[in-house]
Amino acid sequence: MVLIAMTESLGSTARTRVRRLPEKAATDRSALHEVLDAGLVAHVAVTDNSGPNGAAQPYILPVAYARDGERVLFHGSTGSRLFRSLADGAPTCFTVTLLDGLVVARSAFESSMNYRGAMVLGTSRMLPESEKEAALERITEHLMPGRWKELRAPKRKELAATVVLSLPLTEASVKISAGGPDDDPDDLDAPVWAGVVPLHEVYCDPTPATNLAPGIDVPDYVRRWRR
Amino acid sequence: MVLIAMTESLGSTARTRVRRLPEKAATDRSALHEVLDAGLVAHVAVTDNSGPNGAAQPYILPVAYARDGERVLFHGSTGSRLFRSLADGAPTCFTVTLLDGLVVARSAFESSMNYRGAMVLGTSRMLPESEKEAALERITEHLMPGRWKELRAPKRKELAATVVLSLPLTEASVKISAGGPDDDPDDLDAPVWAGVVPLHEVYCDPTPATNLAPGIDVPDYVRRWRR
Repeated sequence: MVLIAMTESLGSTARTRVRRLPEKAATDRSALHEVLDAGLVAHVAVTDNSGPNGAAQPYILPVAYARDGERVLFHGSTGSRLFRSLADGAPTCFTVTLLDGLVVARSAFESSMNYRGAMVLGTSRMLPESEKEAALERITEHLMPGRWKELRAPKRKELAATVVLSLPLTEASVKISAGGPDDDPDDLDAPVWAGVVPLHEVYCDPTPATNLAPGIDVPDYVRRWRR
Repeated sequence: MVLIAMTESLGSTARTRVRRLPEKAATDRSALHEVLDAGLVAHVAVTDNSGPNGAAQPYILPVAYARDGERVLFHGSTGSRLFRSLADGAPTCFTVTLLDGLVVARSAFESSMNYRGAMVLGTSRMLPESEKEAALERITEHLMPGRWKELRAPKRKELAATVVLSLPLTEASVKISAGGPDDDPDDLDAPVWAGVVPLHEVYCDPTPATNLAPGIDVPDYVRRWRR
């Protein structure tokens, strides 16, 4: 297993210092950027007081997002109670997890998954109307590179219905687990296969909308998405 | 876009009722089971008081898991502070998100992702030593079907180092978004391609461990994983 150690360069704090398996924490900011740039969906947590007897109850929202320099941008609906809570400054945790493979060891204990994971803690800020369109372009281009220029501009009512949040990458951690199984030496003689089954997210052939007008081909930029 | 509506059968409460796009909430318990059975990794949230001025701060942990009837099982290390907090009964949110495609609409506003998402709220319980081995078998077989019988039994010290948590599926929601773009009628004449780019997680060819003894072939059960 290839493991990467952590430094203070990611703004390590008592909250983000990697306590478990610290050798899995990646060293530098570029590793954080690479994980964030490779993901399609993030999971964002927010807490309210709906737990038993008013206890803190966390919720997790899957969101589309994009990295924009030293911040991540993500959006939701103005009608979402949890998004409003995030916009009001509730502390959040933003994570991107990329699964890279099943690590098939000679014991259940050492069997695991290869992954790249980023975690960002902090407080998000709601973007003003004037910054929303550029942020939505960034998110659209992260998920669908080349698409924005083909589309009409967002309508004012569409922008008004969208909350765009920005979270700075000031307090973050990255864990990367890669390579083969790390078996107990006592298990190496077991007559059992061991190795890695890599996992890969594949973009399949585009399916046209049922109401697509005849003669409109799949654009080249769509064909290039993660092939 | 094919959307599935929600009933009370999943134990809908004020906390899990799908407020946003309720037509995306799936109707029945089998949909919940299917999403949980199809996932490899879950994201689990837990809250502590490490936010600014002691505010509630959520954290998200990616975990391996398995469904076991009407509960999910997941494991972590006894050394993890957040796992100990979950074991102590901190309210949690357990989510599985499966990305099925990019929905390429004729506007950025209607562009989205197809996905299947399950969310379970509640309080997890730490399994006693006597139940741990069966639970680890369940998790191993969920991720690596056929593997458990090939492996030696867990050692006592391995079981002691592992926290296994159980969360009942009593309060849960499922959202399923599928099908093509749902464009504004005004946009249908735009001379731009629209449709879906399906996403699919592929298991690549197994890579043997560098220290694998000669003559041990990849087992048939490994070759069958999600092909």
